[in-house]
Amino acid sequence: MSLFLFLAASVAAAMPAKPANAVLSPGEIVSAAPAADWRAMAADDLLVMDLAADTAALPAAPPRRIVIQLLPEPFSQSWVGNIRTLAAARWWDGTSVYRVQDNWVAQWGDADGEDAAKAKPLPPGIAAVPESEYVLRPSATSRDVSHEELDMWLATIAGTHAAWHALTHKQARIKDADPYADETFFFRGWPLAASKTGPSAWPVHCYGSVGVARNPSPDTGTGTELYAVIGHAPRQLDRNIAVVGRVIEGMQFLSALPRGPAPMGVYVNPSERTPILSVRLAAQVPDLPIYEYLSTESGSFHTYAEASANRRDPFFIQPAGGIDICNLKVPVRRAK
Amino acid sequence: MSLFLFLAASVAAAMPAKPANAVLSPGEIVSAAPAADWRAMAADDLLVMDLAADTAALPAAPPRRIVIQLLPEPFSQSWVGNIRTLAAARWWDGTSVYRVQDNWVAQWGDADGEDAAKAKPLPPGIAAVPESEYVLRPSATSRDVSHEELDMWLATIAGTHAAWHALTHKQARIKDADPYADETFFFRGWPLAASKTGPSAWPVHCYGSVGVARNPSPDTGTGTELYAVIGHAPRQLDRNIAVVGRVIEGMQFLSALPRGPAPMGVYVNPSERTPILSVRLAAQVPDLPIYEYLSTESGSFHTYAEASANRRDPFFIQPAGGIDICNLKVPVRRAK
Repeated sequence: MSLFLFLAASVAAAMPAKPANAVLSPGEIVSAAPAADWRAMAADDLLVMDLAADTAALPAAPPRRIVIQLLPEPFSQSWVGNIRTLAAARWWDGTSVYRVQDNWVAQWGDADGEDAAKAKPLPPGIAAVPESEYVLRPSATSRDVSHEELDMWLATIAGTHAAWHALTHKQARIKDADPYADETFFFRGWPLAASKTGPSAWPVHCYGSVGVARNPSPDTGTGTELYAVIGHAPRQLDRNIAVVGRVIEGMQFLSALPRGPAPMGVYVNPSERTPILSVRLAAQVPDLPIYEYLSTESGSFHTYAEASANRRDPFFIQPAGGIDICNLKVPVRRAK
Repeated sequence: MSLFLFLAASVAAAMPAKPANAVLSPGEIVSAAPAADWRAMAADDLLVMDLAADTAALPAAPPRRIVIQLLPEPFSQSWVGNIRTLAAARWWDGTSVYRVQDNWVAQWGDADGEDAAKAKPLPPGIAAVPESEYVLRPSATSRDVSHEELDMWLATIAGTHAAWHALTHKQARIKDADPYADETFFFRGWPLAASKTGPSAWPVHCYGSVGVARNPSPDTGTGTELYAVIGHAPRQLDRNIAVVGRVIEGMQFLSALPRGPAPMGVYVNPSERTPILSVRLAAQVPDLPIYEYLSTESGSFHTYAEASANRRDPFFIQPAGGIDICNLKVPVRRAK
């Protein structure tokens, strides 16, 4: 096997020792980031989904635990609130992953939800969310965001500031081009897009993003039927479906599930579905690690982003000169 | 389950009857494309890889057959020639898929290839390919390409023509923005990128793309170690590794393999590798179907591309106004 493709592969690869003058890879830059550049994720934003063990796996498979970070204020909070209510009620316990479509999504929840006679009843307090909440507008931001942070992303919409924007425009070392939006940028560890007309900003669909399946407009989904993206970023869904979080650990337990043979990846036989043992908030899960992300407003992230867009580490011969918002993965780790 | 997300999902989804004035989805446009807009793939360009049956699957799994279309003239032909030689010699028979890394690649070939004492010997006639062949320059195009086709892509590099370019610029209904290249376009059914300085053009890494793993520069790989992209398009590999084809059928037999637990997705125990029964050219495979792709120079593809970038079919409320080269999937089917 060619090991060097391996070295090009991973953001967090363990790397051999190098002379001091060697160009650092993105993974080495992340490994060298000071503790001050990492941010702990709020436990309130962590959703823990345990899937039934993979009985087919030999030797005995590890637990299939998937950890999802929910979007923090100020994005998608009405759906996130519903999801917290559903998790507190243990609503997903006993439901399943019922649909896995290649290069699209793995989707879970109530497989009988379309059948009113069989649908699982909802707990009290589930809100119907208007389509206006797919995007965030300045008038809708009177929430728990610091003035500094609010200024940052509002200014970004106006095209004048924010970490990602500063990097792409002021340093001009990353070609800033996105076919889906006027601007793409990172805010509090999340990839976002923005329109200067409006203005408005919204979370984007990337690999590992978690969204809310819905019925036809004006339905926006309650949050009971969730999906994780398991292929190339389906950005056409941005502003059409609510993004509510991202998988930060255990992604392979969704992305490597067998694809459903029926149209749209549906399993023909209910026995092919993957049972969900439980979905809980972090507060309900003993001994859950603390998770951290590399602050997208930190110097380390700037350096990591520039190095990711202009690969000069030894494997590469032709730096791209740019990178798309979904290909620049925000580093996440368990706290040391 | 929410069926309507399903409808948004698939290029080729069977759709319910609609009034004549309803906006067609990309999938409906493809279904309605006339036979004249489809092109048969050359049998000489088809590589058929049969993986050992999934013994863990219950009920008995279908055969794990993966069909790969190799890049036609004029791209990557020295590596493609090596791959034809390796397949004719049945070199891959008895090798394995030895590495699967989430959101990156599934890689196959000789797991002992790095160990000179254990490496599988190569058949005669395997060429060492210079790095200059990662891209195609006008001076290198004296190959089997029609003048019309050659004019098209050369003109595209100059920024004046070609289907995708015409669509994005002349019709101006798709925002043309790519962070990795000056231009992206489709040529003879393939997604390509181009630089106006040079000029040069090259095949891009998208979901399902097949590439040639290599050791450090100036090595370019022989083609024995191949990978398929199973995540978001790793465009930073463009012009750094040879793209030689794409998976056109059976992608799920690579993308749903268990991820390797070791760094870079390597399997710890050789027994975890997936055995390759055979890799053959189409001429060596009885009863292989004829495969077709929707001509990217056809009116149907123009309509499909515009509709994909500006979703107005019923599920959508906010058309994106653009689409990236890897998210616009070239429709492929078995010939009727």
